[in-house]
Amino acid sequence: MAGRSLPLYRMMSYHLGWVDENGAPVESERPLRTRGALALLAAKAVSGEAEPALRHAVAVEMVHNYSQMHQDVQEGNTDSSGRPSVWWVWGPAQAINAGDGMHALARLALFGLREQGVPTDSVSAVLRTLDEATLQLCEGSYLDTVFQDRLTVGISEYLDMASRASGALAGCAARLGAMAAGEEDSTRLEALTEFGTKLGTALRISTDYRVFWLDGDRDTGVQGRVLSKKKTLPVVHALENAAIRDKRALGEVYAQRVLDPNDLGKVASILDEAGSKGFTEQTLERLSGEALSALERARLPSDHARALRAVLEFVGTTN
Amino acid sequence: MAGRSLPLYRMMSYHLGWVDENGAPVESERPLRTRGALALLAAKAVSGEAEPALRHAVAVEMVHNYSQMHQDVQEGNTDSSGRPSVWWVWGPAQAINAGDGMHALARLALFGLREQGVPTDSVSAVLRTLDEATLQLCEGSYLDTVFQDRLTVGISEYLDMASRASGALAGCAARLGAMAAGEEDSTRLEALTEFGTKLGTALRISTDYRVFWLDGDRDTGVQGRVLSKKKTLPVVHALENAAIRDKRALGEVYAQRVLDPNDLGKVASILDEAGSKGFTEQTLERLSGEALSALERARLPSDHARALRAVLEFVGTTN
Repeated sequence: MAGRSLPLYRMMSYHLGWVDENGAPVESERPLRTRGALALLAAKAVSGEAEPALRHAVAVEMVHNYSQMHQDVQEGNTDSSGRPSVWWVWGPAQAINAGDGMHALARLALFGLREQGVPTDSVSAVLRTLDEATLQLCEGSYLDTVFQDRLTVGISEYLDMASRASGALAGCAARLGAMAAGEEDSTRLEALTEFGTKLGTALRISTDYRVFWLDGDRDTGVQGRVLSKKKTLPVVHALENAAIRDKRALGEVYAQRVLDPNDLGKVASILDEAGSKGFTEQTLERLSGEALSALERARLPSDHARALRAVLEFVGTTN
Repeated sequence: MAGRSLPLYRMMSYHLGWVDENGAPVESERPLRTRGALALLAAKAVSGEAEPALRHAVAVEMVHNYSQMHQDVQEGNTDSSGRPSVWWVWGPAQAINAGDGMHALARLALFGLREQGVPTDSVSAVLRTLDEATLQLCEGSYLDTVFQDRLTVGISEYLDMASRASGALAGCAARLGAMAAGEEDSTRLEALTEFGTKLGTALRISTDYRVFWLDGDRDTGVQGRVLSKKKTLPVVHALENAAIRDKRALGEVYAQRVLDPNDLGKVASILDEAGSKGFTEQTLERLSGEALSALERARLPSDHARALRAVLEFVGTTN
């Protein structure tokens, strides 16, 4: 954003946690940049060096953050990573602009690779991979929104949505990191993409889990997800598997126009009863297992693959 | 959108005027595709053939239409090209998704050029040109939104905004058309870009003009622009130049939270009085003149340049 003076860019910097509303630098706790980290670690795992993937990491994070800014508008989240969201400060119209601008900047960041001597063919392959993941992200966001207005959603439908809304970009991040490091073997690229996709899907479900069962970590952003009636895996499971009486109670809670925060406890106990907590934990374990198998198929030098496993363990943590 | 079955793509096809809300093909009057036409005509002017610029034209139109879908949300326009807007049918959250998806598709359309044998270097240059114009479009949209909440806006500020919000993409369209036709001479590329930029800026101002002085053509979309208090050049001019009494009256109209359609007549007569009609006509003439000079600098074969001049005459028509 350096060298761009329009306040539009200040909104972007604000969203990224770099500055306050007036543009003054802030020392805030920065949110985890899981997708950017994935790109850097994948590059390191392939070649021993993370640096060639720096621009890729930035581009992937920008796509993630443009999407977050739009999502905050779409879901009416007044909080984003513990601060007032961009639309809450500058209005929804400007948050849409700031997101669109960051979407364009994400790719412009990649054109700089040419100046670093990366062949145009590689830059073009990188851009295409990112654009395809971005389109999947939009598809996932579409489904996510549709599901909010539907009472029942199938578990497989839900997992497909999570794989597009959250898995695709993480898969793209791991792939771009490997591409940045010069990896050309398609088996390894596919394996790393799958690793990232499973990990990204787990990221979404891990957030779902923390809505109900990690009081200590429960932040307003996570709670906003329930209040906006965003479907979460435990609720999807319970609506399929709870006792009829409990399904009805759950249905009544979710049929309200706006969810009451006090209903959260009621919902959580129905979920416990229906085995939805256990099911969500098992799903996270299964996704972690699949991610690990994919990582093994990538046949990376074991000391380099360790960091990627560590990211997975971090994401997969449910307690 | 072919081969993509998710209803997200139906929203895009609907916005483009191809299908109705249920996905059934419709025979509607298609909106003018000025930007796509510019790309095709620029290619034809350079090489005698329009076809190499087909994908470029599609990409530019997709960027324009993604931006329109978002703008309809931002301004609360319930109508878009004479039909209910996407957000009005499917809600703002989905209209944001549909716009984001079309933004990604715009560039994916260009990757197909590789399969047509266009060298990667050229594809990459095309993508970068499009991304830079898209970013300018976001900047213009940012300024346009800021100006809505400000009572006074300088004429030069306004023209700068219009040049980014509407000029940049049209300039990009003309440039991409020439690039598609193999043009490499930078003087000619610059001249065509300037031609398109001036023409695109005139497009915006011509729409502003029709809000007040072309009753026959006044559609609900154009009227929506006044009701949402979007600044128009005639009003910007009058707020600087009208008699004090008239400025005050204008200020009172625009200080209302929502504009009353009945105020339109009052505003138009103040604008006439302040010479703002004449000023807007002169501005359109000046922009047309500058566009024509740029076209001359491009030194195109005169029979091929004729079609580009015709587009300009069409846009510049104020009566």
